[in-house]
Amino acid sequence: MARVSQTHLDARRRQILDGAKRSFTRNGFHATSMQDVLTEAGLSAGAVYRYFSGKDELIEAVASEAFAEVSAAFETAAHGAPLRPLHEVLTGVLDAALRKQSEQAGATDPQAFPRLVLQVWGEAARNEALRNTLNDGYSRMRGIWGEVIKDYQEAGQLRTDVPADHIVRTLLAVIQGFIIQRALFHEDAGEAISDGLRALTTMQAKG
Amino acid sequence: MARVSQTHLDARRRQILDGAKRSFTRNGFHATSMQDVLTEAGLSAGAVYRYFSGKDELIEAVASEAFAEVSAAFETAAHGAPLRPLHEVLTGVLDAALRKQSEQAGATDPQAFPRLVLQVWGEAARNEALRNTLNDGYSRMRGIWGEVIKDYQEAGQLRTDVPADHIVRTLLAVIQGFIIQRALFHEDAGEAISDGLRALTTMQAKG
Repeated sequence: MARVSQTHLDARRRQILDGAKRSFTRNGFHATSMQDVLTEAGLSAGAVYRYFSGKDELIEAVASEAFAEVSAAFETAAHGAPLRPLHEVLTGVLDAALRKQSEQAGATDPQAFPRLVLQVWGEAARNEALRNTLNDGYSRMRGIWGEVIKDYQEAGQLRTDVPADHIVRTLLAVIQGFIIQRALFHEDAGEAISDGLRALTTMQAKG
Repeated sequence: MARVSQTHLDARRRQILDGAKRSFTRNGFHATSMQDVLTEAGLSAGAVYRYFSGKDELIEAVASEAFAEVSAAFETAAHGAPLRPLHEVLTGVLDAALRKQSEQAGATDPQAFPRLVLQVWGEAARNEALRNTLNDGYSRMRGIWGEVIKDYQEAGQLRTDVPADHIVRTLLAVIQGFIIQRALFHEDAGEAISDGLRALTTMQAKG
């Protein structure tokens, strides 16, 4: 086998991942074959197996990368403007992250990328390796946001008798639910969730 | 064909649905064949096709029934005790509903039923008929909870410059996220979400 540079290897891997992401987003995991991915990436049959053992490994790589990018967007937002209203921080960055992912996947349909995420979760329910990959990203996000939420607690905006991590997990639940609603029910889920979070965080609860 | 009573037909349909629910919860949709469902239900091969055209129709029926039951539990809770703290109303009934569903499916693993729900969502991302079924249940739930949330608005607990439906959708997002977290990451998601919702609804937000 000819010697190839690391740059070449990286570029080829990138090409396959981009092709896989576009194919998966357009047609879903189950309806996409390895041949579809190769055709989309413009590569010959042998090329892909040098990088990925099969569809499961490709799914895991695509899921892991998408998660890392969404997570990075949240990290940037977290450090950007301390103590801004939570509904602004959350929904602004989520909307932007999903739009960017959709564009990268060549999807004009705003529901395409969220639907891919739903399929990743469905797969993860049956596939432990994928579940562990997601859990890594999820744990990293919890850590980053735990620090942000502590700032709100120290500033007296959020009660301190509740662990910061529990508040983070609730906000992550809102984001997860947002993705479900955008994928299945409403293209415009962002506005509703932003409004709702604004109302809940300014609630005058009794008792 | 011999004439059979409606009671008999209903009982047989029930038997198939229960078998399907147990099989799907245990092994997932993809790894479950129609033969597995029949064996689980203790029926012969011909019986099932009188009631369901195939696995897709069975999945839709199981999903729709599970949704209706969870929704009914929320409706009861909604009418039970007006203006109780939202975190109590939501997480109490959700925990109970999921436990009941798990028991009906014969699952001792608390993650089994939430994992089935994730698979339903993943399927719905690719299957319009299933998506419409879910949307019906989701719309019914939005209607019921819209009335509940209006009570909180009229009592001055929640701001009125945000549509009640947007607040409902945010609470439903928390529930959807709770199901994802329980299915993939934590068996004990209930406590975290209850805590987090309590903190957010008593936030002293600035601006």
